[in-house]
Amino acid sequence: MAPVIALDAMGGDRAPAVVVEGARLALRQRPDLRFLLFGDEERLRPLLRAAERPEAFDLRHTEVAIPNDAKPSTALRQGRNSSMRLAVEAVRRGEAEAAVSAGNTGALMAMAKFVLRTLPGIDRPAIVTILPSRRDPFVMLDLGANVDCSAEHLLQFAVMGEAYARAVLGKDKPRVALLNIGTEEIKGESVVRQAANLIRERLPQLAYAGFVEGDEVMSGQVDVVVTDGFTGNVALKIAEGASRLYASRLREAFRSSLRARLGYLLARPALERVRRRLDPRRHNGAMFVGLGGVVVKSHGGTDALGFSAAVMAAVRLVESATNARIIDEMQRLGQSSRPQARMAAS
Amino acid sequence: MAPVIALDAMGGDRAPAVVVEGARLALRQRPDLRFLLFGDEERLRPLLRAAERPEAFDLRHTEVAIPNDAKPSTALRQGRNSSMRLAVEAVRRGEAEAAVSAGNTGALMAMAKFVLRTLPGIDRPAIVTILPSRRDPFVMLDLGANVDCSAEHLLQFAVMGEAYARAVLGKDKPRVALLNIGTEEIKGESVVRQAANLIRERLPQLAYAGFVEGDEVMSGQVDVVVTDGFTGNVALKIAEGASRLYASRLREAFRSSLRARLGYLLARPALERVRRRLDPRRHNGAMFVGLGGVVVKSHGGTDALGFSAAVMAAVRLVESATNARIIDEMQRLGQSSRPQARMAAS
Repeated sequence: MAPVIALDAMGGDRAPAVVVEGARLALRQRPDLRFLLFGDEERLRPLLRAAERPEAFDLRHTEVAIPNDAKPSTALRQGRNSSMRLAVEAVRRGEAEAAVSAGNTGALMAMAKFVLRTLPGIDRPAIVTILPSRRDPFVMLDLGANVDCSAEHLLQFAVMGEAYARAVLGKDKPRVALLNIGTEEIKGESVVRQAANLIRERLPQLAYAGFVEGDEVMSGQVDVVVTDGFTGNVALKIAEGASRLYASRLREAFRSSLRARLGYLLARPALERVRRRLDPRRHNGAMFVGLGGVVVKSHGGTDALGFSAAVMAAVRLVESATNARIIDEMQRLGQSSRPQARMAAS
Repeated sequence: MAPVIALDAMGGDRAPAVVVEGARLALRQRPDLRFLLFGDEERLRPLLRAAERPEAFDLRHTEVAIPNDAKPSTALRQGRNSSMRLAVEAVRRGEAEAAVSAGNTGALMAMAKFVLRTLPGIDRPAIVTILPSRRDPFVMLDLGANVDCSAEHLLQFAVMGEAYARAVLGKDKPRVALLNIGTEEIKGESVVRQAANLIRERLPQLAYAGFVEGDEVMSGQVDVVVTDGFTGNVALKIAEGASRLYASRLREAFRSSLRARLGYLLARPALERVRRRLDPRRHNGAMFVGLGGVVVKSHGGTDALGFSAAVMAAVRLVESATNARIIDEMQRLGQSSRPQARMAAS
């Protein structure tokens, strides 16, 4: 049976239009999908009337929406009837297999944690996504849920990232690495170094590939890159920014002479393929991993194409049973990963 | 008078050939330069004989070289007669205006700190460089000298970065920002948030532009980006990696059909300009800022073109009197920046 996806229709910079339009684009790829659409009926009705297949949407009215700048704690307290909260609740109740929101990341994480709880053995959920490299795509986490991380948290991210890579990338034995810098020895023992020791000690079954530096990440040397949420978020956005810088310089170059313009016209079909492959919108949709249900965060500023990518990411996560695999993996790898003494300390 | 540059001839993956060849390329741009070349006479003599202008080099023999994987503390203890140490000593003694090395970053920083001492008011030197953005180039620090930073350190980086941007970018009132992530409120008060408060409170004269996220950095919204050495190093290398990823996909695209190949041939001159402008080698050469002398670190794996860029960066730093400006700036901005009570605590 095709999955039912709960949508926070009021989340994101261009909601609700982008949400409905994005769902519609996803329906073109997967006509069997069904959506629970949480949001303001008055604004959604006209959008649904214009949609090709209104019967695929089950509209659930609420007037409450979480503002983009709301504090997570405030959103959690005051947003009980918000479109975001109701979408997450639908997953908990089993009405939907996954929730997708382009709203406030902090609020969504707080609600998802509160409503769905973390999986056994996981202290903190993380944000994970798939990124392109010069070889195969790779998985990176955490992308912003946890600013300060202990070595124990990084170890848990390694386990979740490995399970995610198995489920979503279909890798049999994903190589997992910790993001680090070459000159780290300057300051001696750090959390990353401690995490490396913990992983080697407690996860002997994991294909641990050691440290990777930023440039090695993009050349595709490993399948899973583990880091704290601050560094991961910066890395993700710097990579996007650097791609845009390259693309903008390229556009300037193609406009710089008649000869270059002609060259562009000839190469355009091939260049369009590159642009599409590296388009951040196509990689939109990050999973909140480590929770008792599938929640996917779309970039807040994305368009319909980007939102549809987030919906399709949710569909893949459901259909590859990523969460069940993470639980299995936690048990398989985790037998030695959380000795009682450490549980008390963590 | 043209500056004399001390070169660690034995530092870097392809030393000493790349060092001599890089210096030779720099001489083509600035025939008035003079070099003190520290390293193994037996290996350097033949290279110098082949160089165009051997009289520009003053060869100082030593057989000791710092290995790439040496611990900074070991290098400091055992490397008293190393090519790296002697190059830094030449700056302290006033025989050279700057030292350039492509060797072990940690060892170079440890020696530079030990030999040249930090400037008044600076607890920790930082690594700073200029990077391209969609608008003007910008300055980023720290790029790897300090993994763990307090808010006070970030404040000092802001002062040094501002002075560096004035001297090297020629900006009158550089806008200074702290690198942060959008979802930071999840974890509440962090070092970055504390640093923002400190800067606002103690550096009212600074053009403080608030927080920037990774993507905004590359779009050129500010002139100086301040972050800790771990995040800065990751950001720098991810940006390089993302550019290389884009370039490699582009090469594939241009090879993908006859039509695309033709397009490439037509657009080649314009594309070559983009490649050159974004070539990481041309941005090679990071200054160790906050020290009583100019020390420039070249990427260890660079080629002669990259090494010459590092030499030219050192020349610019000397000729723009960057260090004198930093001292002035520390005094100008610093009157309120280090109250006695804080000095004791920091």
